[in-house]
Amino acid sequence: MAVNLAPPEAPHDIAGARWTTLRTAVRSAQRDDIAILHLPPAASVAGVFTSNAFAAAPVRLAQQHMQQTAPRALVINSGNANAGTGDAGLADARACCTTVAEVLDLKTAQVLPFSTGVIGERLPLEAMQAALQSVTPDDLSENGWLAAAQAIMTTDTVAKAASRTVSWCDAQGREQAVTLTGIAKGSGMICPDMATMLAFIATDARIEQGHARKLLQQCTERSFNAITVDGDTSTNDACMLCATGQGAALRPADAGWRAFASALEELMQGLAQAIVRDAEGATRFITLEVSGARDAAEARTAAFTVAHSPLVKTACFAGDPNWGRILAAMGRAPINDLDVGGIDIALDDVALVVGGQPAPDYREAYGARIMAQAEYTIRIHLGRGDADTVVWTSDLSYDYVRINAEYRS
Amino acid sequence: MAVNLAPPEAPHDIAGARWTTLRTAVRSAQRDDIAILHLPPAASVAGVFTSNAFAAAPVRLAQQHMQQTAPRALVINSGNANAGTGDAGLADARACCTTVAEVLDLKTAQVLPFSTGVIGERLPLEAMQAALQSVTPDDLSENGWLAAAQAIMTTDTVAKAASRTVSWCDAQGREQAVTLTGIAKGSGMICPDMATMLAFIATDARIEQGHARKLLQQCTERSFNAITVDGDTSTNDACMLCATGQGAALRPADAGWRAFASALEELMQGLAQAIVRDAEGATRFITLEVSGARDAAEARTAAFTVAHSPLVKTACFAGDPNWGRILAAMGRAPINDLDVGGIDIALDDVALVVGGQPAPDYREAYGARIMAQAEYTIRIHLGRGDADTVVWTSDLSYDYVRINAEYRS
Repeated sequence: MAVNLAPPEAPHDIAGARWTTLRTAVRSAQRDDIAILHLPPAASVAGVFTSNAFAAAPVRLAQQHMQQTAPRALVINSGNANAGTGDAGLADARACCTTVAEVLDLKTAQVLPFSTGVIGERLPLEAMQAALQSVTPDDLSENGWLAAAQAIMTTDTVAKAASRTVSWCDAQGREQAVTLTGIAKGSGMICPDMATMLAFIATDARIEQGHARKLLQQCTERSFNAITVDGDTSTNDACMLCATGQGAALRPADAGWRAFASALEELMQGLAQAIVRDAEGATRFITLEVSGARDAAEARTAAFTVAHSPLVKTACFAGDPNWGRILAAMGRAPINDLDVGGIDIALDDVALVVGGQPAPDYREAYGARIMAQAEYTIRIHLGRGDADTVVWTSDLSYDYVRINAEYRS
Repeated sequence: MAVNLAPPEAPHDIAGARWTTLRTAVRSAQRDDIAILHLPPAASVAGVFTSNAFAAAPVRLAQQHMQQTAPRALVINSGNANAGTGDAGLADARACCTTVAEVLDLKTAQVLPFSTGVIGERLPLEAMQAALQSVTPDDLSENGWLAAAQAIMTTDTVAKAASRTVSWCDAQGREQAVTLTGIAKGSGMICPDMATMLAFIATDARIEQGHARKLLQQCTERSFNAITVDGDTSTNDACMLCATGQGAALRPADAGWRAFASALEELMQGLAQAIVRDAEGATRFITLEVSGARDAAEARTAAFTVAHSPLVKTACFAGDPNWGRILAAMGRAPINDLDVGGIDIALDDVALVVGGQPAPDYREAYGARIMAQAEYTIRIHLGRGDADTVVWTSDLSYDYVRINAEYRS
């Protein structure tokens, strides 16, 4: 049961971003498990990828292809991650790209592959190619976002999609507007630096590739790189921003740029939070706010040390205001010369620790009331500087263990 | 159910190390929950303590007392950690030491306090002092190790104690022998740099405090600092080595020193492994061997990254040879310039990955056979250097969640 996460409303179409989905029975004959996104020649595409040293074959090939030429299509399969498959896996990913290129009249390097699912098994290449060969350009539709969001799900229980519209007045006083739509998947092996998480975002805006890349990196830090479910960064994570160029042009100096950047960050944060809300076995959605750190890295270290603590996460699952576990996790964060005398800790607006000492007015009932909620914030002030950060995480439940102990069965 | 862990046989007495245990109903009226160890004037005592910045009141006070004078008694309570209790907790710990000092005719600073249990609650000082005041020197007995091992248990299911005897010929050709006995507790919040883990070891050997301290630090690195259950380093960990000085003298240059050091390391490894075997909810005992690292720190980083991975641990619980999770965890270890082309991974003697590629002869049945066992070794060779390390861990089961979600109820 996802935490306060409704199925998405109908996402807006993006001019020039056309989807189709297919059923190749990689994992199940019951639902589509491949999605193809086709982009017009004017599109610019930016991506961020996993930092895992065992990056999967599709991740490595997508990065190679992006260095060779501008992408025109993305092919995504769920059920099999094509990771840990060595050189054979790389050849499989390339073969899929070639097949998609043939049916869409593109070159192999213009197609980017993405995979998510079980690690260490070869792709069912024959079945996939047979399905891909049946695609025709007529199958592609701008009205395909929801079907794509469903096709890329693995242990997700709710499809994840969101849209935003941004409007502004340009230098000539004309009203301009562009639209953003994004989909994402992921609910386990989730940690910063991208996890078993795929996100595909498109806009009709015309944006230079370099600007798109820089903006995507900034927004990723404050969205997908600010969530954790289990601390396990996957081999396959990727987040792509496709600007189809069918609408208004946008550059950093333009009046609309800031609104566009905010809308993109907001959309990506919403998708990232949706992944945590739908985290494997999650019953709580927890925000960690760390302030008063010397720098951003220190703030993140503190936030993720608490967010990864199994003892904090099981206390959250139990709704038990066992705040000593938050304090103990904070105390083991690898931060130099941490003076506990400067630390304040609160649950929402209830102070637990003030200046390293138990808050004198705290009563167990106050903490219990907050931790009984499905959503709350753990606030930590380090008292060492001005840097802050926000991280989102989930609790650790029986169902997390069940899902991950049974995933392959 | 602990993994292959039998209750201890009767531990050997140590001349000069005398115990008594008491019932103060800190957590339960059903069993003793305080242990007192009394040492003779000749004793030298060394300790290693948690690195947690929120070190509990007893840890801070024990360290203060050791700087002031040589310890003559240890007082340990289970059920309440006296952590996160601020200045009031420090006063409570000091009051316990004063009471013990009074009944044993010592000074307050000659008594070291230790606590383990729930964080964030004040000690039931009145009840504890009433119990401590009833102690008389006649209650102390060298035959008290097993009762002490039981009194310091919290979520442990099996008491942990072990003994070793070391003999050697001295420079004059005379046969010499000394005895070592140790007890330990801990089964959750277990991670290197000491966790909710207490260990008390005594020997009748006469050892200078400086030599004892150095030896204890060395052995701790290869025992209690080489285990992890959940990555949570606690506020209360301590490991104490008490040399009562009633038996043969030992210095690093002596013939018997090496045998003594080996026996101590072996004893501490056994106790550390017992903690992992009795880890909360554990159904498997897993050894991680990392070799081919550039230095020891890198080897430990690799080993602990895999050992902490919730996805690896749930796969171990399921007995599922989902080795991709080992590979993915290895790939996210924070190691610079890690070349996956040099990495080999094996389960016991079955190769999974050779030179970063799937081992050609591997079959799922081979991995399944090994992971069905209660104990096995994950071997990782990094191919970058000559450093190695060994770490022990447990799996992540429903019962881990149950125990930690229900611990306070």
